[in-house]
Amino acid sequence: MPDSQFANGCAYIDGSYCPIAQARIPILDAGFTRSDLTYDVVAVWNGKFFRLDDHLNRFQKGYQRLRLTPGLSVAGMRAVLFECVRRSGLRNAYVEMIVSRGLDVEACRDLRRFSNRFYALAIPYVWIAKPEIQAAGIHLVVAEKTIRIPPNAVDPTVKNFHWGDLVRGIYEAYDRDAFTAVLPDAGGNITEGPGFNIFVYYENQLLTPESGVLEGITRQTVLDLAEEQGIAARRTMFNASVLENAAEVFLTSTAGGVIPVTTVNGKPIGNGKPGQITSRIQKRYWEAHDEARWTTPVHYTDEKY
Amino acid sequence: MPDSQFANGCAYIDGSYCPIAQARIPILDAGFTRSDLTYDVVAVWNGKFFRLDDHLNRFQKGYQRLRLTPGLSVAGMRAVLFECVRRSGLRNAYVEMIVSRGLDVEACRDLRRFSNRFYALAIPYVWIAKPEIQAAGIHLVVAEKTIRIPPNAVDPTVKNFHWGDLVRGIYEAYDRDAFTAVLPDAGGNITEGPGFNIFVYYENQLLTPESGVLEGITRQTVLDLAEEQGIAARRTMFNASVLENAAEVFLTSTAGGVIPVTTVNGKPIGNGKPGQITSRIQKRYWEAHDEARWTTPVHYTDEKY
Repeated sequence: MPDSQFANGCAYIDGSYCPIAQARIPILDAGFTRSDLTYDVVAVWNGKFFRLDDHLNRFQKGYQRLRLTPGLSVAGMRAVLFECVRRSGLRNAYVEMIVSRGLDVEACRDLRRFSNRFYALAIPYVWIAKPEIQAAGIHLVVAEKTIRIPPNAVDPTVKNFHWGDLVRGIYEAYDRDAFTAVLPDAGGNITEGPGFNIFVYYENQLLTPESGVLEGITRQTVLDLAEEQGIAARRTMFNASVLENAAEVFLTSTAGGVIPVTTVNGKPIGNGKPGQITSRIQKRYWEAHDEARWTTPVHYTDEKY
Repeated sequence: MPDSQFANGCAYIDGSYCPIAQARIPILDAGFTRSDLTYDVVAVWNGKFFRLDDHLNRFQKGYQRLRLTPGLSVAGMRAVLFECVRRSGLRNAYVEMIVSRGLDVEACRDLRRFSNRFYALAIPYVWIAKPEIQAAGIHLVVAEKTIRIPPNAVDPTVKNFHWGDLVRGIYEAYDRDAFTAVLPDAGGNITEGPGFNIFVYYENQLLTPESGVLEGITRQTVLDLAEEQGIAARRTMFNASVLENAAEVFLTSTAGGVIPVTTVNGKPIGNGKPGQITSRIQKRYWEAHDEARWTTPVHYTDEKY
């Protein structure tokens, strides 16, 4: 049996494992007070990590770019992630790793001398749109009052918690009776939304924004599966008009997979139901979570749990 | 005697007071995982809050803008700030208040239903540049690789922890042997830097950027004191050339006051020493911390402490 105190999730803080409800970080951690950190999220599905090494590689590039050091080797962090999942007993989990600037232990305000911190946690799998919502498809708007933070301010390829623009977008969506929002850049190109990349199927091609976005692992998986399925796909910038007039639209996220969009700015996409290409990719996406090329099994204490 | 366990600082978390070293927030607070919050910082100097109601007013505007509710009245928050300082016994303190989006207690991912949280803390006064550094003046650069997050992405007048751009600026400063950096906007106008507004004394006028910046209380105090002293001052945008060629340059922050800048991009400002206008304003700034119009005394348990 897994340890029942960890059944709602397990975190790794200050070198120890604790139940998620007790997982707390210092209020003075610059990861909080300056959002000075990077993170990554990997899914465990049916007891297997999905593309774990791709997530770890992106995470490593991110903290190196920010000149952060986690204080553990990649193998050490990997072991912590497995242990968080094992203790939780969760077969479907949302597994997060964070390196923050940490604490100014010398009270010198020199960022190069802060004590960086590594945190990890495993909680039940998170859906940015639950399966029953995905079945009908979601209502998306293009934010009108908010642009995405530009890459020359904060680099979106280093996964970060700077969600002020994305939260504004979500409130724009609420105010327009939609589920979520995608943000344009200053030039009107579509970028990404809160926790997701976006794809359109337009003129018989899958398109996803090329730059100014997170290089999502789910986005990459869709590109990989499109190639496998013989569906033309490329990375390119496009505007709201292409989005509104696309034959199909979907979002991609580790927290929910391939999420059909059935209206954009209140206008139906295609026949107003999830599209055929979307559904084909979505089916293959979940099948791939059982394929050996991309998965790494967790060894649970009680495999019958 | 103040309670010695609070001597390094006192925080208010989940409705209780605790020593700062034990002050922790839930790792799943969206204030951390989405940097979805606003905050403010007010100074206590010689046992008196400085412009406390101005800080509380700005804070209240900020959380209303973000549709956050602190769960306490303004009077209630005010009382918590006093109690944090009183317990710490600190005569010179950095007093912070935060309202975060908080926890998704219903696991619904609907931001409107999160349980917002109010945090507060009092720690020893923070200097973004210590007095001995201020005496010589600091070395400033204009960031070349980083722009300030634009207001149509994240509103800088709602004080926030989105410091990714500012931290990049600080590392640019380190790499150029400077102390800190000020960031331009996309059009090359000077905006602000990590924790400070900026002023130049140029053609016999004090200038400070008009928009795209925090409406700093210290900035306002400098404008008020300039008027009192008969020094012409206005809010207007200017570029790096004005900054480099100014007669005087200084930074303003609740965490350090009026901070002289003696080089910009490696070039001396004026004669390379803190300027006369700067020194006059700086002197008046600290004197004002004992003037009744802007101060509110803390009633300590032991006034002789």
